[in-house]
Amino acid sequence: MGKKILVLPGDGIGPEIVTEARKVLDVVNARFELGLEISEALVGGAAIDATGVPLPDETLAACKQADAILLGAVGGPKWDTNPDFAIRPEKGLLGIRSQLQLFGNLRPAILYPQLAHASTLKPEIVSGLDILIVRELTGGIYFGQPRGVREKEGGIREGFNTYVYDENEIRRIGRVAFEAARARNKRLCSVDKANVLEVTVLWREIMEELKSEYPDVELSHMYVDNAAMQLVRAPKQFDVVVTGNMFGDILSDAAAMLTGSIGMLPSASLDENGKGMYEPCHGSAPDIAGQGKANPLATILSVAMMLRYSLNAGEAADQIEAAVSKVLDQNLRTPDIMSEGMRAVSTTEMGDAVVAAL
Amino acid sequence: MGKKILVLPGDGIGPEIVTEARKVLDVVNARFELGLEISEALVGGAAIDATGVPLPDETLAACKQADAILLGAVGGPKWDTNPDFAIRPEKGLLGIRSQLQLFGNLRPAILYPQLAHASTLKPEIVSGLDILIVRELTGGIYFGQPRGVREKEGGIREGFNTYVYDENEIRRIGRVAFEAARARNKRLCSVDKANVLEVTVLWREIMEELKSEYPDVELSHMYVDNAAMQLVRAPKQFDVVVTGNMFGDILSDAAAMLTGSIGMLPSASLDENGKGMYEPCHGSAPDIAGQGKANPLATILSVAMMLRYSLNAGEAADQIEAAVSKVLDQNLRTPDIMSEGMRAVSTTEMGDAVVAAL
Ligand SMILES: CC(C)[C@H](C(=O)O)[C@@H](O)C(=O)O
Ligand SMILES: CC(C)[C@H](C(=O)O)[C@@H](O)C(=O)O
Repeated sequence: MGKKILVLPGDGIGPEIVTEARKVLDVVNARFELGLEISEALVGGAAIDATGVPLPDETLAACKQADAILLGAVGGPKWDTNPDFAIRPEKGLLGIRSQLQLFGNLRPAILYPQLAHASTLKPEIVSGLDILIVRELTGGIYFGQPRGVREKEGGIREGFNTYVYDENEIRRIGRVAFEAARARNKRLCSVDKANVLEVTVLWREIMEELKSEYPDVELSHMYVDNAAMQLVRAPKQFDVVVTGNMFGDILSDAAAMLTGSIGMLPSASLDENGKGMYEPCHGSAPDIAGQGKANPLATILSVAMMLRYSLNAGEAADQIEAAVSKVLDQNLRTPDIMSEGMRAVSTTEMGDAVVAAL
Repeated sequence: MGKKILVLPGDGIGPEIVTEARKVLDVVNARFELGLEISEALVGGAAIDATGVPLPDETLAACKQADAILLGAVGGPKWDTNPDFAIRPEKGLLGIRSQLQLFGNLRPAILYPQLAHASTLKPEIVSGLDILIVRELTGGIYFGQPRGVREKEGGIREGFNTYVYDENEIRRIGRVAFEAARARNKRLCSVDKANVLEVTVLWREIMEELKSEYPDVELSHMYVDNAAMQLVRAPKQFDVVVTGNMFGDILSDAAAMLTGSIGMLPSASLDENGKGMYEPCHGSAPDIAGQGKANPLATILSVAMMLRYSLNAGEAADQIEAAVSKVLDQNLRTPDIMSEGMRAVSTTEMGDAVVAAL
């Protein structure tokens, strides 16, 4: 059958971490006879340098043909000062999300027991933490029109963006979240700002409507400011959280940081049919690029998510996750998760250790 | 000369905490011969119950005539289900902010050494924490037009809001923040999402422009998702943070919760001339209303901010803050900040203790 996997290394530490993830993918591809065809393409700053745009037509076409995409990371100071907003690495990422309608973004925040000390929160607050943020990824204020900077009377400049969701967009991400809650601990918290923003009044209404389809899931609502507080105060109260694109960006990063080890956290961005793009939660970390300091585990765990959600290879995913847990038990640590008494390893050594553990 | 103070008790625990704060205000009014004339008015749910609207004309007029306003808190489940969005307690609060152009919201997040254990974060991460969030309060997506819920083709409903700032709005809140940084540790971090939202590209540009007026202040920029992470990872890296209305709502609540004792945190909302509304950072806590469990210290500290910023009575403010510190040293604690070995007191006992310490 030959499923197609497109790999997009991107910028900064992207190429290094993707190299390790590919090693792991190669092992399970052979072992489980998955027959995956793996190819690579340019995106982000790397694509700007080579072609002038962050998402070349060729890359977009390859994304559309692929059954799943593995992304490293995009962005870096080199391209941040580009005055043309369309020629920024981030636009490559946003373009793929939007063009492929990868609206369902799953961001687990899991605390690995071996890394419990890495959290800045007290152990009793975060031990055993396992929450899932479901973020809408192709709508909301990220993509709303109209947008831009215009001149008012008197030549005063005014910047504006539009936060917009229609009921269908809300319903489809709601269903993803209810399904995820059903497969977990059956509690879903929808986050909005319905006391101020009309768009989120509709959001809350549609989430309420969906409740009847999922009588086994307990739905609650929370204002976004309170959600930010509750993540700090008592994060284990959450099971699945669903929210829009902008609030999801903020809350998922806060949730990830609760674990103290975002170098460990993968993510999935899925379309209506389960096709998806998989990437680590962390960024391109240009400051440590090329030094062998990057932690490849989030990308390797993204491969596991890819196998589970897009390639129907749950057993291979389980093996990868077990291998990652094993290397942590072997006390191997990249610099970001290093602590006393552990053994410091490089990006490559960590990737090789996972392969060995497999 | 007779400066006018308007007190708005509001809903939930509002009346209780405001009663204690008035005792404290009465003491300093007499001691420093401030000649303050204190009156009360209705706002929020209390106003809806009495008059049908959250901000009666009479209250708005009294707000305009006052030199400073002390607010308890507004809101509660009783009014949350009102289908008419305009008849919600929050609209009273938003109406005062907007009508009086109280655009400069100062939200300090300070960890009291006596309450260090109350934080969910490790002591080394938060001990000595003292950051100031400066939030724009009368613009952005909270007030942007157009807004609402409309029908698209096919009868599909769509909710929408507008995130908008003009350069003058950005400049005036920027100046408030630069001035605040100048009076503190001279570091200002402006938070935006300039890699995605055009309105915040303009925000960043104007902040950069202001730099030349404040060469003694070090300006940095941070994306909002990263700011949420950094508040959890290493909050002491911040001195003053400036951001828009929505991001400020989220980040100031997260920052407040880092201290573990938001029952202690006051806030000020100032206009161009230093006239202001003062209120605790916490909400109306309807679940504990009327039980003597509420912590009045945030409201009492809001009185101190009022004396300092709107009434030019810094010495009175200093005395109130010292009295609050003293009651903590006396081990008196309301339930929200209670811990082993401390003495549990009620709302009234706490207020009386501050008066005694004065
Ligand atoms: C790089 C940026 C555009 C992106 C976003 O804001 O969505 C990132 O922060 C993320 O969360 O994936
Ligand atoms: C009550 C609500 C409208 C308000 C806001 O969002 O501004 C509150 O959360 C605050 O931060 O003062």
